[in-house]
Amino acid sequence: MSNDQHIASAFDRDLETIQAQIMKMGGLVEEAILNAAKSLETRDEELAEDVRNRDRAIDLLEEQINEEAARVIALRAPTAIDLRLILSVIKISGNLERIGDYAKNMAKRTTVLSGMPQISGSTAALRRMAREVERMLRDVLDSYIQRDADLAQDVMHRDHDVDQMYNALFREFITFMMEDPRNITPCMHLHFIAKNTERMGDHVTSIAEQVIYLVTGEMPEDPRPKSDKTSVNPEYSEPKE
Amino acid sequence: MSNDQHIASAFDRDLETIQAQIMKMGGLVEEAILNAAKSLETRDEELAEDVRNRDRAIDLLEEQINEEAARVIALRAPTAIDLRLILSVIKISGNLERIGDYAKNMAKRTTVLSGMPQISGSTAALRRMAREVERMLRDVLDSYIQRDADLAQDVMHRDHDVDQMYNALFREFITFMMEDPRNITPCMHLHFIAKNTERMGDHVTSIAEQVIYLVTGEMPEDPRPKSDKTSVNPEYSEPKE
Repeated sequence: MSNDQHIASAFDRDLETIQAQIMKMGGLVEEAILNAAKSLETRDEELAEDVRNRDRAIDLLEEQINEEAARVIALRAPTAIDLRLILSVIKISGNLERIGDYAKNMAKRTTVLSGMPQISGSTAALRRMAREVERMLRDVLDSYIQRDADLAQDVMHRDHDVDQMYNALFREFITFMMEDPRNITPCMHLHFIAKNTERMGDHVTSIAEQVIYLVTGEMPEDPRPKSDKTSVNPEYSEPKE
Repeated sequence: MSNDQHIASAFDRDLETIQAQIMKMGGLVEEAILNAAKSLETRDEELAEDVRNRDRAIDLLEEQINEEAARVIALRAPTAIDLRLILSVIKISGNLERIGDYAKNMAKRTTVLSGMPQISGSTAALRRMAREVERMLRDVLDSYIQRDADLAQDVMHRDHDVDQMYNALFREFITFMMEDPRNITPCMHLHFIAKNTERMGDHVTSIAEQVIYLVTGEMPEDPRPKSDKTSVNPEYSEPKE
């Protein structure tokens, strides 16, 4: 075995170790999304607290992944495509950490909301939205491991559905608030949860972009599909960030 | 001059080039924050459009910085502290890009809000909040260039003030919405601007953490000061993310 091959396979093993940590982190984040949305719908404060407490493990994994990536760069001095692979690990773990934070925030609001009037149907709609984001996350991590640009592209398109779910909820909350001022405070919180769930989708999209970049060497042309309905009906829509 | 010194100083020059790009990016982001807040207060749609258009330059700088960082890692194979410096550049440019996105989003809402009833005093309060975040950003970038952990720590503490400004606005918006249903839609948008400005502060804090880590080798113990007033008055406060 030549020295070059030896170095290459040591790098591959290092990369596999880090990717396994990414998958572990992804699994924890998926669980956090589903449990946060469930705790919100069932007003399960114990489950909400559980989600909040488990976020620490997600944060620690991100730190470990970053340290491990730095260690591999220092040790193996990877070039070109290998370096790109290692740097993508830092970006993706950063995205996962943010999604975890949003799930934690959703869980925090479960406690705040449990003392307020229920807004008919909205927590069920939020849970559907969260479930869609969780599926997108699962698929985008699959696309990362398989280096499947088509699947990543598919995930990017599905983010559009999440944006539409968000726009529908935004209109709904305004209607509820106008109907009865007692709905204002709970709707403010629910609206944030909806917005944060939409942002989770943006972070999943950002992972999908990374995958496409890794596989094709180019960033997708229209990285974030626009779902800005401002020009159609500015009163009831939201500019995308 | 020994070969080692030659390599070290080549790395230093590379690092300085990238840091100059970070400062340029920081300058554009500061300008975007101030102009977005100004366009909101003065209902200046032209200025708002200008902010939106200039965001592309910020995004491009982030891409350039990332590519340059990857190039330096591949070329110089830096170890330990040098590698940490280069990796921090990737994180910091990511934070700046997000802050720029929030400023762009604020500018977009200027256009949406200009057709709606004015909410007394709120855009002036938002501009004060934005100005404080801009000052924090300027100081944290100074602390980065000077490797000044004390200044970075000071910036982290000031984020607490921004959180308090946000909490005050949150209460104010709810009051306005309860007084008159016609205030609901504009207040929803203003509330988002306030939240996004608070998030800008979080990204500045995250840069401050990086600086402290670079200088001391350790992350600050309590990375994000808590300003969660939920336990005191859950109706009128907001869980931190």
